Amino acid sequence: MPDSQDSDVLIVGAGPAALFAIFQLGLYGLRCHVIDGLDRAGGQCVVLYPDKPIYDVPGFPEINGSELIERLLRQAAPFEPLFTFGCAVVDLTSDAGGEWLARLDDGSQARGDYVVLASGLGLFNLPPDGSAADADLGAGPISDWPLERSRGAIVVDPGTFETSRPGLFAIGDACDYPGKVKLILSAFHEAALATQEIRRRAAGGKKSPVEYTTASRRIRESLGRT
Amino acid sequence: MPDSQDSDVLIVGAGPAALFAIFQLGLYGLRCHVIDGLDRAGGQCVVLYPDKPIYDVPGFPEINGSELIERLLRQAAPFEPLFTFGCAVVDLTSDAGGEWLARLDDGSQARGDYVVLASGLGLFNLPPDGSAADADLGAGPISDWPLERSRGAIVVDPGTFETSRPGLFAIGDACDYPGKVKLILSAFHEAALATQEIRRRAAGGKKSPVEYTTASRRIRESLGRT
Repeated sequence: MPDSQDSDVLIVGAGPAALFAIFQLGLYGLRCHVIDGLDRAGGQCVVLYPDKPIYDVPGFPEINGSELIERLLRQAAPFEPLFTFGCAVVDLTSDAGGEWLARLDDGSQARGDYVVLASGLGLFNLPPDGSAADADLGAGPISDWPLERSRGAIVVDPGTFETSRPGLFAIGDACDYPGKVKLILSAFHEAALATQEIRRRAAGGKKSPVEYTTASRRIRESLGRT
Repeated sequence: MPDSQDSDVLIVGAGPAALFAIFQLGLYGLRCHVIDGLDRAGGQCVVLYPDKPIYDVPGFPEINGSELIERLLRQAAPFEPLFTFGCAVVDLTSDAGGEWLARLDDGSQARGDYVVLASGLGLFNLPPDGSAADADLGAGPISDWPLERSRGAIVVDPGTFETSRPGLFAIGDACDYPGKVKLILSAFHEAALATQEIRRRAAGGKKSPVEYTTASRRIRESLGRT
């Protein structure tokens, strides 16, 4: 019987989109398990441009990939994410109750109520292309689903960043929608809006006001600041 | 005859959305004129929480409003925006050729090819509510247009951030679309996507690939880095 770890949200990929999703979901009490094939966090930022200056991260006239990742990790740290590095997701399955099971290539398993694909398309075998209308929304492994695609990425609703599969979200370079530009700053927005939808679902569909970090005592306490 | 200043893009408001729009538009050679009723840049950040910690700006585990604004001003500085502070926009008019004229309350005027409303709704008198279908798309002052509204803000296309009025964009707290959350980080995304649409229009509708700051020599040179 393989190991299995439970969390609220499984995040596939550990680049900037994933790291900011940990933080956003953490603000609302949702704990994440992040799985990445690399041996550390950072995705393209640490593989392609660890020392190369990036000029368009808002508020940073210049920053390199390594420093950005280090800062995003520090921002997410209060929410104590679980990281599994050096493992690929071999398959994702949802059961009839909507719970997700990820099988990893080391034989372990991970469970979550929601899945956020933040893999930049680099991580695992995508299912065949198909339209939302064709999608079989029953239970089963992701490789059997005709997820809607566009421009080499997965089509999402730009208000929620959910794919054509309920409970499966995609953010960062893994997602496509009208106007999509593959910018790190857009991935942050995508993570924030996916979080609001996951939070609404987790509350049984009940919509609650956004809580602002400048004003919410609950959030300040969850960050260890009082 | 009043003073009149020309620029590519008129930006109404000088908060974080506006400052990052200057930077994004500057990356593509578009020069901005920013007009704000306050005596300095920053909008809500400097009025409501100059010294209060904000925890959800990506990459900043903690930052206050003043420091964020100072950093965004530094990031935008290479593109030499024109700032007009302490002036309200009394009216905006577009002529038949699509050029925009803003009349300010000090009697001066400003002209631009496009307008970005980034005013957080605080700055000037909005036109009456109305649906896009009702909108009179002819020339004339903004106060005569029934701009489509929702939740107290102006409805935009979330792929371009254009309002129901061609050439008039809205970002930050001034805009609404499905899923909209009033977060500073979303305003950055909105500024980036509006920029891509303005850039496409400025090129006569021709779409060009996004240029990445990590890879584009032209952008590095425009930022004074080589």
